[in-house]
Amino acid sequence: MRLAVIPGDGIGPEVVTEALKVLGEVVPGAEITNYDLGAARWHATGELLPESVLGELRQHDAILLGAVGDPTVPSGILERGLLLRLRFELDHHVNLRPARLYPGVRGPLAEPGDVDMLVVREGTEGPYAGNGGLLRKDTEHEIATEVSVNTAFGIRRVVADAFQRAERRPRKHLTLVHKTNVLEHAGSLWSRIVEEVSLEHPDVTVNYSHVDAATIHMVTDPSRFDVIVTDNLFGDIITDLAAAVTGGIGLAASGNLDITRRNPSMFEPVHGSAPDIAGQNLADPTAAVLSVALLLDHVGEQEAGRRIEASVAFDLATRDQSSPGTTQAIGDRLAALVSSNAPRQAS
Amino acid sequence: MRLAVIPGDGIGPEVVTEALKVLGEVVPGAEITNYDLGAARWHATGELLPESVLGELRQHDAILLGAVGDPTVPSGILERGLLLRLRFELDHHVNLRPARLYPGVRGPLAEPGDVDMLVVREGTEGPYAGNGGLLRKDTEHEIATEVSVNTAFGIRRVVADAFQRAERRPRKHLTLVHKTNVLEHAGSLWSRIVEEVSLEHPDVTVNYSHVDAATIHMVTDPSRFDVIVTDNLFGDIITDLAAAVTGGIGLAASGNLDITRRNPSMFEPVHGSAPDIAGQNLADPTAAVLSVALLLDHVGEQEAGRRIEASVAFDLATRDQSSPGTTQAIGDRLAALVSSNAPRQAS
Ligand SMILES: CC(C)[C@H](C(=O)O)[C@@H](O)C(=O)O
Ligand SMILES: CC(C)[C@H](C(=O)O)[C@@H](O)C(=O)O
Repeated sequence: MRLAVIPGDGIGPEVVTEALKVLGEVVPGAEITNYDLGAARWHATGELLPESVLGELRQHDAILLGAVGDPTVPSGILERGLLLRLRFELDHHVNLRPARLYPGVRGPLAEPGDVDMLVVREGTEGPYAGNGGLLRKDTEHEIATEVSVNTAFGIRRVVADAFQRAERRPRKHLTLVHKTNVLEHAGSLWSRIVEEVSLEHPDVTVNYSHVDAATIHMVTDPSRFDVIVTDNLFGDIITDLAAAVTGGIGLAASGNLDITRRNPSMFEPVHGSAPDIAGQNLADPTAAVLSVALLLDHVGEQEAGRRIEASVAFDLATRDQSSPGTTQAIGDRLAALVSSNAPRQAS
Repeated sequence: MRLAVIPGDGIGPEVVTEALKVLGEVVPGAEITNYDLGAARWHATGELLPESVLGELRQHDAILLGAVGDPTVPSGILERGLLLRLRFELDHHVNLRPARLYPGVRGPLAEPGDVDMLVVREGTEGPYAGNGGLLRKDTEHEIATEVSVNTAFGIRRVVADAFQRAERRPRKHLTLVHKTNVLEHAGSLWSRIVEEVSLEHPDVTVNYSHVDAATIHMVTDPSRFDVIVTDNLFGDIITDLAAAVTGGIGLAASGNLDITRRNPSMFEPVHGSAPDIAGQNLADPTAAVLSVALLLDHVGEQEAGRRIEASVAFDLATRDQSSPGTTQAIGDRLAALVSSNAPRQAS
């Protein structure tokens, strides 16, 4: 396996180090190349994602990314010029974000119930398309537009993927989250395609929730959700909320997938670069480790992915929640668990 | 006071009846006109909001609305053709949504802290502007766009109002919620205007939160919020979440204000028409009653508004949370409390 690693900014390098430590226990022979993209490179050279680097990244089986964003760089520069550019250039149309409340983890809800959902967020269009602009900038008559672009092609491929994933899960349930009562045009297209694709999956039950109502259900009855399919912006919002409800973004993993496999998929914790705690050995690397599990699952190493997930589940059930240990200590513990977890014994 | 009442659909008429009962105790002389807009009228006549009715509504001091939406009407028809049309025609640019966790109320969070926030949601532009369209409809090449329209004029007036409200509150804190790292154009305009207006309010502290992060804070640390100012769509999403966190949309009131007072403002519970429990005397009318308190505050009857709020607070602190009573019983109780609550004794 050829793996490209972008440690990135803030706590990114720290959590990536631990994630690679764990990876090394299950797939010892991985060929790893580091790419120093992020704030430091931008400051030094002005570069965000040079074409040559993008070309090299394409030669890999997968990408592991730590985090992107730094207070010394104007907001949006790194996010759009590096993170979103990677997602768009590499056609990461399926943004996979599982949210599971692991046994032993205490989230903010008094009675969360049994939460195990998978949000399938569209990753290459919607309000993230970068369409829009300014008119009469810096005057009192300034107008700013943002255009959400939604295509039948783009929606169909992510909806089809979401149905397939729902079909493989015990509850076989899919919820479309949108705002069809207000966003009439995009809403009608999403609804039509979900209806059409549902005909090919008669065993999957389907319902619909407005995004505002979905946030209510996330905190009053999150166990109702199985697979959620939604657009890029709604997916951004509800996956942070789902992560919070299931114990915080310290645990939330994600995959940015090109399911056609024409481009390498990219795996990253949902959390940001957390500059306030960077370099202090304080960040929880669990989200990065779980992102490696998603990565392994995607590249055909399902057994290795399951071993990591089982080790994380064990650690979460037994760790001291109020002081889970340093970044390195958690990484060491997970690596030890994974290595002691012989292949066929994983849960 | 000339009050227009639109009971609307589902539980709307039931909760409005109780809200008017309570209103009658504090402002006995109000002149009330009912308007039968909603699903029934649409079915009977095809009308949503006739020009003549709109003209009559304009002649009132305020509007009280119950709820809009019915399963027998295609999604969006009533929402866009009646509710949003009223907000846009009457230039309701400040959508005021307080979220307070009243003593005695148990929300879904294990440790909510002391929650008392006020969301000032822009009400007349953003992704709600109705711009956008479909191309190649019903083909596999269909494209749907939604255009978020943001003007310096529209943002400035709501931001100015939010600062004024923050200034009148003990904590004097304002949070801008947006997604500036992705929605570059709208984000830069919102940020610029918040910065400019903040210069006129040196005593108000200001911070910024991405909307995704804001949903995390809503469930992990909601007491951090004082006044939030945000766009129409983000406001829609986070106010449902804020309502859930503070005990549910059965308690969440809102005002759609034209702060220039050229048009009557409109007050409504945040909840929808809840057709599943309509006509069964099951809906909690508290949100509608609190909307009347906001209404009274807006039309200069602050004392009366405070009496209602104090009565609701008392009832919430003493009611049996698991069975608060029927719609009518709660209304009767609140009416009795308000009438026994002589003007100067209200808290
Ligand atoms: C950093 C930002 C551009 C990004 C997004 O909005 O997608 C992040 O919030 C995420 O969810 O991965
Ligand atoms: C019914 C719908 C159009 C409305 C909105 O999106 O504004 C509602 O959700 C609200 O928050 O008042």
